[in-house]
Amino acid sequence: MASTPRVLSSTELSPSEAKWITLKRLTYLDANGKERLWEVAERKTRKSTGIDAVAVLAILRSKTKAFPVSTVVIEQYRPPIDKVIVELPAGLIDEGETPEQAAIRELEEETGYKADGVIEATPVVVTDPGMTNANMKLVVVNVTLPDQMEFPRQKLDVGEFISTRVVELAKLETELKEYAKNGFVVDARLAHFAFGWNLAGRIDKI
Amino acid sequence: MASTPRVLSSTELSPSEAKWITLKRLTYLDANGKERLWEVAERKTRKSTGIDAVAVLAILRSKTKAFPVSTVVIEQYRPPIDKVIVELPAGLIDEGETPEQAAIRELEEETGYKADGVIEATPVVVTDPGMTNANMKLVVVNVTLPDQMEFPRQKLDVGEFISTRVVELAKLETELKEYAKNGFVVDARLAHFAFGWNLAGRIDKI
Repeated sequence: MASTPRVLSSTELSPSEAKWITLKRLTYLDANGKERLWEVAERKTRKSTGIDAVAVLAILRSKTKAFPVSTVVIEQYRPPIDKVIVELPAGLIDEGETPEQAAIRELEEETGYKADGVIEATPVVVTDPGMTNANMKLVVVNVTLPDQMEFPRQKLDVGEFISTRVVELAKLETELKEYAKNGFVVDARLAHFAFGWNLAGRIDKI
Repeated sequence: MASTPRVLSSTELSPSEAKWITLKRLTYLDANGKERLWEVAERKTRKSTGIDAVAVLAILRSKTKAFPVSTVVIEQYRPPIDKVIVELPAGLIDEGETPEQAAIRELEEETGYKADGVIEATPVVVTDPGMTNANMKLVVVNVTLPDQMEFPRQKLDVGEFISTRVVELAKLETELKEYAKNGFVVDARLAHFAFGWNLAGRIDKI
């Protein structure tokens, strides 16, 4: 029976009890050669690639130009925020996978779309470098449809609840602002991408 | 005497010993009404605004158009990554500050530039919602210079080591890729902003 997801309770956790994340104190030398301390949260799941995760920007196009160039975003309840978050499709990299393979796999699992090629990937970038060591790559893939927009079936795991939404790239920033007005919260990386796209077209007008 | 900053050692930390970050286990109800667990890292420093941090996109312009529209990025050693990170100017919001006030203050402290106005701010966005509850706003401000580019003096705290770099907005994405080739690591939000800006101008060519 469907219900509204919500956090029921929260308790402090020692790193030894935690399965996914740990908390560490770093001792480091600063630029003056002085010893200082810093606190950091780290994922315990990083595999031999040295990269935690990928996000996927899928470029959805029609061979007949039946619809404008679009992308697909996902809506997913995230316990850390206790809200539904709007994000790019994304996920952790499995052992033995390249970031590009992880991107194609996550895109198909979370949205059903099959990429027909990788266009490019960013260098490894860091998500919140003052607080965590989390890193990722943004992988851009092509999804070419023969004609009209299609809405394929997702391949979700048991217990995964993800909605998808196709958005015209030229309208992405406006749509994200609408999401925020309607009680959703937007992922910072997606918001920055959309903001950059949008600002490029109006820098002379602001 | 200047030295190369580096991490010397790292130890697991219990949340009770930590000053800045804590680790928690959440119990939540999923969309099927089933109880599940999730692990999250949270900052202990969030003030009454409910927003952890701001990043600042400064739009640097010349009244005489002596230089192209530019922005300023910072280079800062970050112990969690043990590298120098390229980021937008940013910082935590102090008690009693609005995000816009924090943005203007951080810009001046970290870069010396004085904003002459706030253009806009994004809604509250979340930095890494699968792992942390961290949230932020991107604040866009105007810095209008009378003529040629100026490089004002920063107002750093003792123990803060930040370099600044002015980059033409139209070349930002290319410059960030150069940074990555030269051993720097780029912040994901800055990278996504630059990637969005750049992609908007070449979507028909990829």
